[in-house]
Amino acid sequence: SIVDALQVTCPSNLLAGKRILVTAGPTIEAIDPVRGITNFSSGKMGYAIAQAAIEMGADVTLISGPTALTAPRHCTTIQVTSAQQMHDAVMAEVRGQDVFIAVAAVADYRPREVQSQKIKKHADTLQLELVRNPDILAAVSNLPDRPFCVGFAAESDQLLEHARKKRLQKNVPLLAANLVSEAMGGDDSRIVLIDDHGEHPLPSGSKTLLAHMLLQHMAGMLPPSTTSDASIPE
Amino acid sequence: SIVDALQVTCPSNLLAGKRILVTAGPTIEAIDPVRGITNFSSGKMGYAIAQAAIEMGADVTLISGPTALTAPRHCTTIQVTSAQQMHDAVMAEVRGQDVFIAVAAVADYRPREVQSQKIKKHADTLQLELVRNPDILAAVSNLPDRPFCVGFAAESDQLLEHARKKRLQKNVPLLAANLVSEAMGGDDSRIVLIDDHGEHPLPSGSKTLLAHMLLQHMAGMLPPSTTSDASIPE
Repeated sequence: SIVDALQVTCPSNLLAGKRILVTAGPTIEAIDPVRGITNFSSGKMGYAIAQAAIEMGADVTLISGPTALTAPRHCTTIQVTSAQQMHDAVMAEVRGQDVFIAVAAVADYRPREVQSQKIKKHADTLQLELVRNPDILAAVSNLPDRPFCVGFAAESDQLLEHARKKRLQKNVPLLAANLVSEAMGGDDSRIVLIDDHGEHPLPSGSKTLLAHMLLQHMAGMLPPSTTSDASIPE
Repeated sequence: SIVDALQVTCPSNLLAGKRILVTAGPTIEAIDPVRGITNFSSGKMGYAIAQAAIEMGADVTLISGPTALTAPRHCTTIQVTSAQQMHDAVMAEVRGQDVFIAVAAVADYRPREVQSQKIKKHADTLQLELVRNPDILAAVSNLPDRPFCVGFAAESDQLLEHARKKRLQKNVPLLAANLVSEAMGGDDSRIVLIDDHGEHPLPSGSKTLLAHMLLQHMAGMLPPSTTSDASIPE
């Protein structure tokens, strides 16, 4: 569309000098060397946000679970597999970031034990005991010197109700909510932004366009930076 | 390499007129709308075998789990997600096939119950009860009018011992065995073929080259066809 083309070819410089940390993709929680638990995520939304932030002048670090996507250029990309690895990479990179955008579909649970050898299938049934993974967004939003945090909520039902609750639980100023059935894997999506002022449905469109609109909305919410050199007007 | 180039650019016509059914990729067993259990498989080996079989003149049907790969041209491709769907697609397509090559990394177990709504994470631990999936290769190799069956074994340890046992259990004339640590995701692999005459290690190489070598070996084992029109010498 024309709007899409304008947005993409005429990026604003709204995020010039901002340091932005983005997570993307699924995580995979190993059961044994050949099996794992995963979330369904192509990584497209997170990569689109990283790309859009780069085009808007930001200094972007992308921490990505396993995807088939090519890492954006002009961006530090760190590949991880499990939620614990993603948590550790985020905590190692978060210091000094202006913004943290948690787009990754992180597995909430992992198998309690990982078998080092391929499990041989004899039994008709198998019990798998799962334990909670660290909550990466909550960990960052509870840091004393936290960056501006943006969360994502993919819900299968009662979208707004679940998303509103999630934004308060996670203690983040901005949350992007989308329906699983509309977002997963495709190139298009539909998103509702939720902040202190209420709900802001974005027009449906490509993930590239949605990424630009989300970042534009977010840019208007960022506090005037006092600590970052990059925020001094040029 | 020169051998690679020769193999790929000068394909034999060894499989002209043969109907070959190939499975490839992982399967994903849904836990709920956003989570699932999967096997680690890029699908590259199965797609390479389908492609090589096409180049050797075969009429190929590819049944593929979720991958990021582009389907080969001149090939019927059926996309599936779960092991049960792959089983059903194979059983629907197997009649009249000369060869069945089971390359897919099929999940052996699936969750007993699939939640239709996204599971909300409250508990610190979760018990997941898994039940056995159908064994697709065994189902085909036990058909009264079965095609020539080729199995794959990806093992993390005691490769040949497990693979020999698997060939007998599955009742297949040819099995290709490879080590998980060497095969997964990469473009190269190493394979040992196992048949009634013993073990035949293939030289290590690209999955494309290995696919050609496997099919050449297999072509020499195929019975002279009596039912297929396509096997009449031209």
